[in-house]
Amino acid sequence: MPELRRDPVTQQWVIIAPERGLRPKDFQRKATVVGVSPQSCPFCPGNESKTPPEVYAVRLNNSRPNTPGWQVRVVPNKFPIPNVKGELRRWGFGLFDLMNAIGAHEVVIETPKHFATPNNLSDFVDWDMMTTEQVKLVFRAYQQRLLTLRQDERFLYLVVFRNYGEQAGATLSHPHSQILTLPFTPGLPKRELDSARRYYLERQRCLFCDLIYQERELQKCIVWETEHIIVLSPFAARFPYELHFFPKQHSHDFALADEGLLADLAEAVRMILMELKPMLIVEKRAVTKEDFAYNFILHTAPNTIPRPGRPDYWGTLPYDYHWHFELIPCLTHIGGVERGVDCYINPVSPEAVAEDFRKALAEPATTEVKG
Amino acid sequence: MPELRRDPVTQQWVIIAPERGLRPKDFQRKATVVGVSPQSCPFCPGNESKTPPEVYAVRLNNSRPNTPGWQVRVVPNKFPIPNVKGELRRWGFGLFDLMNAIGAHEVVIETPKHFATPNNLSDFVDWDMMTTEQVKLVFRAYQQRLLTLRQDERFLYLVVFRNYGEQAGATLSHPHSQILTLPFTPGLPKRELDSARRYYLERQRCLFCDLIYQERELQKCIVWETEHIIVLSPFAARFPYELHFFPKQHSHDFALADEGLLADLAEAVRMILMELKPMLIVEKRAVTKEDFAYNFILHTAPNTIPRPGRPDYWGTLPYDYHWHFELIPCLTHIGGVERGVDCYINPVSPEAVAEDFRKALAEPATTEVKG
Repeated sequence: MPELRRDPVTQQWVIIAPERGLRPKDFQRKATVVGVSPQSCPFCPGNESKTPPEVYAVRLNNSRPNTPGWQVRVVPNKFPIPNVKGELRRWGFGLFDLMNAIGAHEVVIETPKHFATPNNLSDFVDWDMMTTEQVKLVFRAYQQRLLTLRQDERFLYLVVFRNYGEQAGATLSHPHSQILTLPFTPGLPKRELDSARRYYLERQRCLFCDLIYQERELQKCIVWETEHIIVLSPFAARFPYELHFFPKQHSHDFALADEGLLADLAEAVRMILMELKPMLIVEKRAVTKEDFAYNFILHTAPNTIPRPGRPDYWGTLPYDYHWHFELIPCLTHIGGVERGVDCYINPVSPEAVAEDFRKALAEPATTEVKG
Repeated sequence: MPELRRDPVTQQWVIIAPERGLRPKDFQRKATVVGVSPQSCPFCPGNESKTPPEVYAVRLNNSRPNTPGWQVRVVPNKFPIPNVKGELRRWGFGLFDLMNAIGAHEVVIETPKHFATPNNLSDFVDWDMMTTEQVKLVFRAYQQRLLTLRQDERFLYLVVFRNYGEQAGATLSHPHSQILTLPFTPGLPKRELDSARRYYLERQRCLFCDLIYQERELQKCIVWETEHIIVLSPFAARFPYELHFFPKQHSHDFALADEGLLADLAEAVRMILMELKPMLIVEKRAVTKEDFAYNFILHTAPNTIPRPGRPDYWGTLPYDYHWHFELIPCLTHIGGVERGVDCYINPVSPEAVAEDFRKALAEPATTEVKG
């Protein structure tokens, strides 16, 4: 039975989720099954019965649930980290704080095409480019699931993330993201929320809005700008080529983003991933299936539905957070300083990353794009 | 020029240290040079001129500095992350906080033997076991360098760490540790120190002492105990098979540990590493050079020398911290939840780890040990 435990010293919650029968020697054998065939892939059309029944889908031609005909499909994870059923219980034992691991863990299957990717260089007949429209459908699916899952008051924080490639923790190759709900606000968003709330209470202004304003004045760390979206190479980036995607207009809640904003975001993400591939991996226009691993993570306000009498709920103050996505390429091994004391050493200057992009975008990597 | 930058949102300091001329494509090629020969190894005896001049050494027979004859040798890192020379400067720009990256970065060469390891299974004629005495000399070297480096008031926090294996961030195979000094207290120790100080101010007791007392009463997470040292599988371990080594007697400062304590610690570390190898990697007594990667990190009080008028100095309250070493095997890939929101998912229960050890220690892995 998985359990949530708070470390009595660092005060951070950890998910203890023993996988039954898994021995430590097995960890190192768990790798991306990149070569898995569409026939055996549980996320491919025709194999809908290999996943739990869908909780959301975008379907064409009135196709029936759990049959082919979908464009995006969301299903509960077959091997969820927490249990979705049951009452959330909290208890303590001496110095220890515990909760049973209650939560939803869902998979967003981003496209019916097994060999699709948002950053294909269009040189392979058997690899399909995910179109901007398709990526937008994925973001729309995130929004719909956030709105639904928030109705459940056991779910205080919702993590939406895409692990791509073995080094990023992925174990299946069909394009997918995941949604995990937690009964606590985890470390990094908690620090962001605390800091942004303090800033707002002092100044009645959003910290992120001020940061974006400063970056636009300085023009050193801006990677890309559309009508609604700004992409920053963060001034104190923890990882090389880490990039943050912000809406230019203040908004604490990703679920509220409208069609125009989602379209812009989808285009920005696809564009950036496409430009990063030749920067990080191969010479420009080289013909290779090799790709870089990355994590792509949504940072949005915790469950925004007010729960009177629940002080752990962050509530609805709409000005003290600013949603964004973080893209973290997995390029370097994490060492003792990072893992041991949570201090990051970044071997690339964020300004140099922004400059690389400005150069690359002046001379686009792809000329022919399918789909 | 490397720079320290504080993220205006998370408020954590990051070291931005661009390596000149290093392109992102180079990151993935940087791997452990396990096969490097003793002839070309900069840490092997006879090659002393390939490193900067030594700052500390344990030498036999009155051998001269920077010549063979040493048992442990500490040298400045030839490619340091920060610069050791210059005045520490702090400045701000709008929302940004900066410091120039001033600090020492030293390498502790743990033994003259290139093919030595603290957890050899004694089956290879060309691999030497590091003796407990040798490991103790390494700990003594840490202490001596901590005492010396603390005299420098630019160095607020000192990180002592051992990266072993490619996945742990190591790039050289000769047994070594590193010492890095920082002009700030990094994320994890800062949270530990804040929490332990609050606990002490409320109760006039050390949080770690209370934790050790509770664990000894419960007997579920204790892995190993000697006269002076207790090894715990932490209740809320972030990583599978993470282990913490504590002195049983309260002490905030590792540099104060006496000979008996160091001998016990050296024996415990060697014993645990030796038992872990067959648990994690290979069948018991299998003949292989394969090993598991790990980080081994000292958590001790920040610079303990009082600096009147410097409120950033933690000061000398000797009861609000309890030094320990953390051993973190690198067995799993870190995914989007860990990297993206700083929430850890541990697939092994800490009690199961302690039980594994109790079984293994009842039937030791090695019978013949050289050295």
